[in-house]
Amino acid sequence: MKRPLLLLTPDEFNLRLDKVRDAMQRAGADAMLVSGNATIYYLTGRVYAGYIYIPAGDSAPTFFVQRPVDLSGDNVTYIRKPEHIPESLGYVSPENIALETDTTPYSKITRLQALFPSSTVINGSAIMRGVRAIKTPREIELIELSGVKQERVYRRIPHLYQAGMTDLELQVEIERASRLEGCLGQFRISGDSMELYMGNILVGENADTPTPYDFAMGGEGLDPSLPVGCNGSIIKEGNSIMVDINGNYTGYMTDMTRTFSLGQLSDTAIKAHRCSIEICRTLAAEGKPGTEACLLYRHAEEIARGHGLYEYFMGHRQKAGFVGHGLGIEINELPVIAPRSHDILTEGNVVALEPKFVIPGTGAVGIENTYIVTETGMKCLTCAPEDIVSLI
Amino acid sequence: MKRPLLLLTPDEFNLRLDKVRDAMQRAGADAMLVSGNATIYYLTGRVYAGYIYIPAGDSAPTFFVQRPVDLSGDNVTYIRKPEHIPESLGYVSPENIALETDTTPYSKITRLQALFPSSTVINGSAIMRGVRAIKTPREIELIELSGVKQERVYRRIPHLYQAGMTDLELQVEIERASRLEGCLGQFRISGDSMELYMGNILVGENADTPTPYDFAMGGEGLDPSLPVGCNGSIIKEGNSIMVDINGNYTGYMTDMTRTFSLGQLSDTAIKAHRCSIEICRTLAAEGKPGTEACLLYRHAEEIARGHGLYEYFMGHRQKAGFVGHGLGIEINELPVIAPRSHDILTEGNVVALEPKFVIPGTGAVGIENTYIVTETGMKCLTCAPEDIVSLI
Repeated sequence: MKRPLLLLTPDEFNLRLDKVRDAMQRAGADAMLVSGNATIYYLTGRVYAGYIYIPAGDSAPTFFVQRPVDLSGDNVTYIRKPEHIPESLGYVSPENIALETDTTPYSKITRLQALFPSSTVINGSAIMRGVRAIKTPREIELIELSGVKQERVYRRIPHLYQAGMTDLELQVEIERASRLEGCLGQFRISGDSMELYMGNILVGENADTPTPYDFAMGGEGLDPSLPVGCNGSIIKEGNSIMVDINGNYTGYMTDMTRTFSLGQLSDTAIKAHRCSIEICRTLAAEGKPGTEACLLYRHAEEIARGHGLYEYFMGHRQKAGFVGHGLGIEINELPVIAPRSHDILTEGNVVALEPKFVIPGTGAVGIENTYIVTETGMKCLTCAPEDIVSLI
Repeated sequence: MKRPLLLLTPDEFNLRLDKVRDAMQRAGADAMLVSGNATIYYLTGRVYAGYIYIPAGDSAPTFFVQRPVDLSGDNVTYIRKPEHIPESLGYVSPENIALETDTTPYSKITRLQALFPSSTVINGSAIMRGVRAIKTPREIELIELSGVKQERVYRRIPHLYQAGMTDLELQVEIERASRLEGCLGQFRISGDSMELYMGNILVGENADTPTPYDFAMGGEGLDPSLPVGCNGSIIKEGNSIMVDINGNYTGYMTDMTRTFSLGQLSDTAIKAHRCSIEICRTLAAEGKPGTEACLLYRHAEEIARGHGLYEYFMGHRQKAGFVGHGLGIEINELPVIAPRSHDILTEGNVVALEPKFVIPGTGAVGIENTYIVTETGMKCLTCAPEDIVSLI
């Protein structure tokens, strides 16, 4: 009746553990206590309630489990509460202990800190962010699989529209198609400030409503408690319809945006959409290992300016501060493609590029693709057709 | 082109502010800096990126906004980053400053703490939890409205089943019906450890799979990255089908569970379902202001024991540690109806009671309702039929 805790192969587990230990050493961490769902999933292949204690050096990590009750394996120790950890470890006192301080609530960190009273706390979130930015071959497999499934759903979108639909009604049909294709629904975001349900459809003028969240695009939303995305308007002739829906099919996400229309869009909108494709192609070709992220951002902005489209680039009434972002288990991983980002592209980074435009009177246009950074540039994992398709 | 920041009526805003100030005084807080989406929504009627500074006494709060760019109103101040707050406030230094330490990441709290270098930080999450446990008349209106809409969807469930469906396929149709009825989707949970997408359908044996999350019921889920809920099995004759789907239609949630079946269930399952209804009725009648939450839990357990059903009560292989919970903006508010909970029921509490049973070979049975605590007991807000309905 027991299930194995570790769902990664031993090789994959050791690969990830080695990456973490290398990063711990560079950060001067003598031990790390991992506590977040995303990082526990990264290190074991499953989410459980508990902790992983990783000592520096060669000793094996300990998996402390609170729930579920039926996991087993080497170094799996059941605890009722974290206060049972010190005794189980023989009251170790590493000089520096890494905790996930950027993502774990203050009260929980101070509780964990008290388990190692003579240790100095250092930022384990930064360590794990760096490690997770470079995907392993198994992670890339899972991301590629999400891309294939998401593409299958996106190809069906033109068949889901019916005359007279609201933006919400179309979104609901795309949500349904995604779920039936295996989309897990959960949209994981690091940090406490961003919220989104299954992604975003932006139609017409609603695309120009500023949002509180740090996404590339806005929208009024259905309610001021979740002010982002579709707002229940009927889709009208001349509107653009930007679809940016959850690509989490495997625990790992791809991020893809495509633009549809009801009839013909304005010349500016068509031009801006072509510009978005041009920016994606250009950045993908330039995005080789060693490239500084801010250079990619600047080039994107230059291309938009060169076409006289800067006014609409990454939003009109409110602009987003980036043109791309790393992703994997969460939607906001490293590297960030932003004006002041000194992140250096590395083989194995997975990055979504989303050069989008908001054209008053028409709506949002542009595309988004997810890429893996390779020796020869960025390889696209989200391959649905990129041109604007009219739904009528 | 500007939108008003405050979406509450002045009376409603003042009512909530007075409640917060009373609680701040009891906790010895000289000021509070509110930073969470749920609490900003509570105090303004909208989510925005920023902060609210509330001084003790009669001075007006200041609304510090980072995004969206187009909000206006009294005491609305735009900032680029929280480090601009001290100057704007004239470098105040309250002796104690309340911050939301239970829900805000450690790094963000230490950043906010540095804005008030001579102040002692106290737990603002506890203050806001206590305030939000007692709903205002406007909040009750919104919760009642969610209950009405959720009921409408639940009544349609028997029409959504088709022969041969998997648990996922049925769940997707209920998700779609919910969304078309106006469900916002977002399932707000306080804290960093629980995750759920749109709720849960548990069919047959899958109900007995333990989960890492602190929900009343489990389920294997579709993927080890989100191990809860339906697992893609085909619904079979003799299975129970427990439906517990997101009731967030207004920014405020109701929580309702109903049990369906494919054909006749076992006698034990039917008996346990009746026992669940009996527990709900009994606790609702007893749940008057002044009742200690642990007494309600103990009575629920006694009733289950009296029917010889304790083995299945609140789970079989893994048991949940509670039979009810407060809810509102988030699914896990106060009071908690648990064995050691000293929460005292108060008029205006909104509580979900979910005495559920997992019967091996059949699945999960029982109901869940959301109630408002009134002078005369708990009044039910989720009024779909409670008996088991066969889908064939």
